[in-house]
Amino acid sequence: MTALDDLIESLSRLPGVGKKSASRMAHFLLRGDPSACERLAHDLTVLHDRIRPCSVCGSYSEEDLCQVCSDPGRDRSIICVVEQPQDVQTIEAVREFNGLFHVLGGVIAPLEGIGPDQLRLSSLVSRVQEGSVREVILATNPTVEGDTTALYVQRILKPLDVAVTRLASGLPVGGDLEYADRLTLSRSLRGRVSF
Amino acid sequence: MTALDDLIESLSRLPGVGKKSASRMAHFLLRGDPSACERLAHDLTVLHDRIRPCSVCGSYSEEDLCQVCSDPGRDRSIICVVEQPQDVQTIEAVREFNGLFHVLGGVIAPLEGIGPDQLRLSSLVSRVQEGSVREVILATNPTVEGDTTALYVQRILKPLDVAVTRLASGLPVGGDLEYADRLTLSRSLRGRVSF
Repeated sequence: MTALDDLIESLSRLPGVGKKSASRMAHFLLRGDPSACERLAHDLTVLHDRIRPCSVCGSYSEEDLCQVCSDPGRDRSIICVVEQPQDVQTIEAVREFNGLFHVLGGVIAPLEGIGPDQLRLSSLVSRVQEGSVREVILATNPTVEGDTTALYVQRILKPLDVAVTRLASGLPVGGDLEYADRLTLSRSLRGRVSF
Repeated sequence: MTALDDLIESLSRLPGVGKKSASRMAHFLLRGDPSACERLAHDLTVLHDRIRPCSVCGSYSEEDLCQVCSDPGRDRSIICVVEQPQDVQTIEAVREFNGLFHVLGGVIAPLEGIGPDQLRLSSLVSRVQEGSVREVILATNPTVEGDTTALYVQRILKPLDVAVTRLASGLPVGGDLEYADRLTLSRSLRGRVSF
C-alpha cells in the first residue's frame, strides 16, 4: 500500500465515489499543485472543530446561533421542520421561505431502532409553546419514514394552538404523467387544487 | 463562508464532482466520525511528500525505483510506453503484461504548447540503446494526440534495432456494430485479422 493507494481508499469511502472516480481524483491531486491538496486537508481538519449544531434550530453553525436564527429579518411566526441540516441549505437555496427552521436530526425508523426519543422533538414543542409561532410547516421527505414522522409531529403539536401544514406532494414540475409512479400520481389526484 | 462552505468549495474542484455531490460528501463527513475526516486529511497531507516519479520509468513510486522496475520477475526485453502514470495502474490491473513501462508524461499537443521536448523521450531512447530491449509497445490513447505521439515515438526508435508495436484499436468487446462510431468501425475493418 503506497500513499496513493491509501488516498484512493479514503476517497472511495465518500458517498457516490467508486474506485475509478477515487483513482481519478487522487491522480488529479497528485498531478496538480500541492497547495490544492493542503487546502483540502486543512478544510477537512477544521471541519469538526468549527461546525456545531445551532442551539435553537439544530442546523449547522459556526456560532452558538446559526445565521437564520440570528437574522432579525426572518419571520419568527413560522417554523419549517426538516429531517437533516442539509435540508435547511436546500430550502434556503430556493429563496422562497423567510421563516425559521427546526432540524429533527432524523426520522422515525423502527427498523433502524430510531424512535421519537432520538429526535429533537421536545425542543420543538418548547419553541411552539413560547407562543409567537403561528404555523409549523412539516418538510420531512415524502417517504414512508418522512410521512410517519410528519404524522407523529402533527399529533404532538395538536394540543397547542398552532397551524400545522405539510409540503405539497405531487407531480414534479417538468415531469411527464407517463413516467410518474403510481403513488405520486395518486397523491397528485387526491391533492388536486382548484384551477 | 463557513468551514462547511469552504470544504464544499474545495471538494467541488475535484474532477467529476459538482456542487451537489460536494455538498453530499461534506455533510457525510460532518455527520460521520471525525476520524474519517482526519484520515483523509492525513492521506492528502503526505501524498506529495511520499510519492515521486520512478527514476527509470517515470511512474509513481515511494522509492527511487517503482515496484515494477525493481521486480526481478519482470521481462526486461519489452517496454510498454504510456501517456500518464495512471495508465500503468490500468494496464497492471489487467494482469496480462509482464514487461516494463515507460511514462511519457503527456502527449504531443501543439495547441496546448506541448511539444516532444516536454515528454520523457530521451530517457526512452537511452533505455532502448542499452540493448536488452526487444520490443516497444506504444500504448498511448487512440486519440488524435495519442496517435500522433505514437507515430513520433515510432520514428525516433526506427534507427534502433527494436520492434515497435501499437495496441490494437477496433470494436470494444461486448459492443454493438450499430453503436460504433465511424472511425472505430473503419479501424476495425482496416485492422481485420485472419480467423
